[in-house]
Amino acid sequence: MIQGIGASSGIAIGKAFVLPNWEWEVPDQKIDVSDFAREFERVYEGIRTSKHEIEQIKDELREVVGSEETHIFDAHIAILDDPVFMNEIQGIIQRQYKAAEVAVKEAIDHFVTMFDLLDDDYMKERALDIKDVGNRLLKHLLGVPEVTLPSDTQPFILIAKELSPSQLAHINPEHVLGIVTLAGSTTSHSSIMARALGIPLVVGVEPKLKEPIITGQTIVVDGGAGHVFIDPDEAVIKRYNDLHDKLAEEKKKLQHIADRLSVTPDGKALRLEANISSIKELEIALASGANGVGLFRTEFLYMDRNRFPKEEEQYEVYRSVAEKLSGEPLVIRTLDIGGDKQLDYFELPEEDNPFLGYRAIRISLDRKDLFKTQLRAILRASVFGQVKLMYPLISSVNEVQAANAVLKEAMEELEREGIPYDRGIKVGIMIEVPAAVMIADLLAQEVDFFSIGTNDLVQFTLAVDRMNEEISHLYDPFHPALMRMLIQTVEAAKKYGITVGVCGELAGDLRALPIWLGLDVDEISMSAHSILLVKERLLGTHQKESRLLLQELKACRTSAQVIEKLEAFKNALDTRTANG
Amino acid sequence: MIQGIGASSGIAIGKAFVLPNWEWEVPDQKIDVSDFAREFERVYEGIRTSKHEIEQIKDELREVVGSEETHIFDAHIAILDDPVFMNEIQGIIQRQYKAAEVAVKEAIDHFVTMFDLLDDDYMKERALDIKDVGNRLLKHLLGVPEVTLPSDTQPFILIAKELSPSQLAHINPEHVLGIVTLAGSTTSHSSIMARALGIPLVVGVEPKLKEPIITGQTIVVDGGAGHVFIDPDEAVIKRYNDLHDKLAEEKKKLQHIADRLSVTPDGKALRLEANISSIKELEIALASGANGVGLFRTEFLYMDRNRFPKEEEQYEVYRSVAEKLSGEPLVIRTLDIGGDKQLDYFELPEEDNPFLGYRAIRISLDRKDLFKTQLRAILRASVFGQVKLMYPLISSVNEVQAANAVLKEAMEELEREGIPYDRGIKVGIMIEVPAAVMIADLLAQEVDFFSIGTNDLVQFTLAVDRMNEEISHLYDPFHPALMRMLIQTVEAAKKYGITVGVCGELAGDLRALPIWLGLDVDEISMSAHSILLVKERLLGTHQKESRLLLQELKACRTSAQVIEKLEAFKNALDTRTANG
Repeated sequence: MIQGIGASSGIAIGKAFVLPNWEWEVPDQKIDVSDFAREFERVYEGIRTSKHEIEQIKDELREVVGSEETHIFDAHIAILDDPVFMNEIQGIIQRQYKAAEVAVKEAIDHFVTMFDLLDDDYMKERALDIKDVGNRLLKHLLGVPEVTLPSDTQPFILIAKELSPSQLAHINPEHVLGIVTLAGSTTSHSSIMARALGIPLVVGVEPKLKEPIITGQTIVVDGGAGHVFIDPDEAVIKRYNDLHDKLAEEKKKLQHIADRLSVTPDGKALRLEANISSIKELEIALASGANGVGLFRTEFLYMDRNRFPKEEEQYEVYRSVAEKLSGEPLVIRTLDIGGDKQLDYFELPEEDNPFLGYRAIRISLDRKDLFKTQLRAILRASVFGQVKLMYPLISSVNEVQAANAVLKEAMEELEREGIPYDRGIKVGIMIEVPAAVMIADLLAQEVDFFSIGTNDLVQFTLAVDRMNEEISHLYDPFHPALMRMLIQTVEAAKKYGITVGVCGELAGDLRALPIWLGLDVDEISMSAHSILLVKERLLGTHQKESRLLLQELKACRTSAQVIEKLEAFKNALDTRTANG
Repeated sequence: MIQGIGASSGIAIGKAFVLPNWEWEVPDQKIDVSDFAREFERVYEGIRTSKHEIEQIKDELREVVGSEETHIFDAHIAILDDPVFMNEIQGIIQRQYKAAEVAVKEAIDHFVTMFDLLDDDYMKERALDIKDVGNRLLKHLLGVPEVTLPSDTQPFILIAKELSPSQLAHINPEHVLGIVTLAGSTTSHSSIMARALGIPLVVGVEPKLKEPIITGQTIVVDGGAGHVFIDPDEAVIKRYNDLHDKLAEEKKKLQHIADRLSVTPDGKALRLEANISSIKELEIALASGANGVGLFRTEFLYMDRNRFPKEEEQYEVYRSVAEKLSGEPLVIRTLDIGGDKQLDYFELPEEDNPFLGYRAIRISLDRKDLFKTQLRAILRASVFGQVKLMYPLISSVNEVQAANAVLKEAMEELEREGIPYDRGIKVGIMIEVPAAVMIADLLAQEVDFFSIGTNDLVQFTLAVDRMNEEISHLYDPFHPALMRMLIQTVEAAKKYGITVGVCGELAGDLRALPIWLGLDVDEISMSAHSILLVKERLLGTHQKESRLLLQELKACRTSAQVIEKLEAFKNALDTRTANG
């Protein structure tokens, strides 16, 4: 058993499929001049076989991970076809009298080192590609046995060095039972997405892994505990099979409440909405009885491509999501790139502190062309459902006004063009910068709703980058400062009669539920996968008791005290539920 | 006239001294085998001459910039002595039949490219060294005329590509009339220090500079306007000489108020203290009549060396500063490294967002050995003056308690060792993290004083890295959110009867003075150089009017409104002063 970091809970049992990342020993064989022709031919033959194999993988993978993700394999084929690569290999054979596999290995090392040295992320990616395809070629030259891909019909456990959010966005939860990554942290975007998709995920197993996991091995993943079993005995498999069935049973039981109203026993209706990045997540959300989408992260629409999405393309997606929601609210957040979210085709400046940098609404207000295109697409989609518009990273009244000025232009254009849009579209902002909390009363007079983004708000308020492992213990959503900020924001919203919700990770944390009830927020938006769990708890939690708890929380001096009170409240509820 | 960015105001007129950073054309001459010996000898001769020259420069510079800064020249000599360097040059001569200067040029390019490719700051520095010393060698091979250094007795205008804070810390303001740097920004630590030292500084002239400035040229620097004149005509020199004299006159006039009490006409005493990094700055502070030191940045004590300073070394410095202050308060801030402040000998992790990372008190609480050494040194110095202790970057009650636990250990140790210290030493914290503002009432119950660090507080509150040029327009100390944070912090301090001051850059901003008077803070701490200007203004500003102004500021919705009201207040005062 390997102890990793549990990043998305759930049990998965299945065969491993390892995203290729090979390393082999290559014996340093010398050859004669008379062998040159034979060794050249071996290289050519290896390249032909590799290309054929890559084409096959592309075909097989396309349906599993989507066609976007197979583009990487086109890059691999291009490398095999590159005369510079072949020249380097031939040069080593001819000048150093080395066998084909040694020459290939040295050529790979040469290019990888060269690209790696360049202080450029693009080049580092290219180095990975060369290593990957070069190892495939090596595999053929060394005659290492074939790696069999799991067929479409057999779901598998995906093993990877690391997964990017856009890779994960393309994974089909029906084919991927669970994921194990060598690197990664629980707070990465990939981990957030795995939780959203309900795929068990264990990250950071590398330090504990004695030998590489091989495709075809039986793997048990316990995403809650962070456990990974490799080729375990029958007893372990049985134990986890039982646990898996039990969880599935509980999930099925939860499914019964999907259609119930999300109301506390004493009558407080709290809308439970979903944070989504893709249509796929929307489907999970709808199956869980989400009361709409509280946060549609549009940046993923911008990430999976090589140019900015056109107005028409965006419109189609927004419209499709709006229609699927059949009248339930859809909050579309405008482009939130920068920070840790990059686009391949839009070069952002190198920044010392990207979280405190050129990002989100700052980019939109700087690139009004891009911004207006998105606003037009959202406005056009607004007649197909209850669409709301939300600006991220707002820190001042000026920014809201500047964004609204562009919105007004977009509306006037549509007006002139005779294109319909919802003239009463609600416009809101994320409250995620401390300044926005401090002037929440002023901002409340400018917009129709607030959505508190706890992730960034905690980071800025505590001056802690939650991705930074050195200080991640200081990332503390239950810090008394945050409690006060939540109270201050909600009070400002209520004073000016606008709605207020929460859409950070904390919204899906069961411990935090009495905070939202105590504050009397209108909605909370979370991973689709958390909705039923939160709803079950909501159906048993009284708002009145939550209000009393909130008063106690206000008096806490440390987050330890806050957490202690929240857990005591939760335990008391559990006991009451168990007793009757 | 070159338009740069004015980073430290004042007029300077003098001869340029350019920190060497040469580039020459090297014609690609071919040689015969019979020339090898001669070319080798030319290289040896060039190396000998270069070494001799470097030794001379070391001697001359030592008194101007201090001996620490001449260490770089030892590295240069080591490169000239390095057989790898010589081998590379000889190899190029022998294999490619190239003349000595061409071989040297190519060897430099080779090494520079190699080191530059490595993604490592240390290696990049080495690349700069090789370029620098290699160019000196080239200069001799090409027979380019000698660069004459200004003699000790003749002060000069320093021209550099960029200056680090530790380079600036060693500059003697009596020898350096003004500084012009090709790169840099007004918010860099070097710019802050130049203002503290009162040295006129213009940065970022590179884009406007058509040809390089040459040592010996006459330069006029107008640090306020950001103007740099190169070899200007007599009329310009006369104009700036007059301006310089006028400013000197005003400064002399200001000097008359150095001994006056810093009290408003209606009797509010506001202590005007100095932010210092070195004994040199302390002297300027004392000459300006500072009411003590509100911020002693101890990190500069850690920066100018190759290992952590020992307790004894720290103690000597703290004691010396305390004694020079003859009973006036000395607030010693514990080590504030990390973020943009690094130590050569203490490797900090590579961070994506260092401002939100492992720094300041977080390092101290993690490295209690280093922390206790510093606390012991401060405690031991505390009997030689009115020493206070201040923790940076506090974000929770827990952190204060953890820091105080180490302080208690240090006190107990000294107690056991029979070493005297001030048992009643005041312990305070920087309020510079938004969380600290939100829980200022809780923190006020744990400490003896607050000092508001506006620089970081603005950065975190607005989520803006002020060093990031892309968004520096969003760095806005007059944002209404900040006004409210100031009010909230001061109210908490007053409620619990502790003193409160301000020590960020804003404290020295004349426009902000009525804010401090309106808030009724106890002290403001600023660049030594700003003290007399602020004092002059203080002597003419009524607290009562400032309080009324603050009420108006509270109602502002944008920073433009805040600034407008502050400037109107300032103009009204100016008019009143002018009218008698």
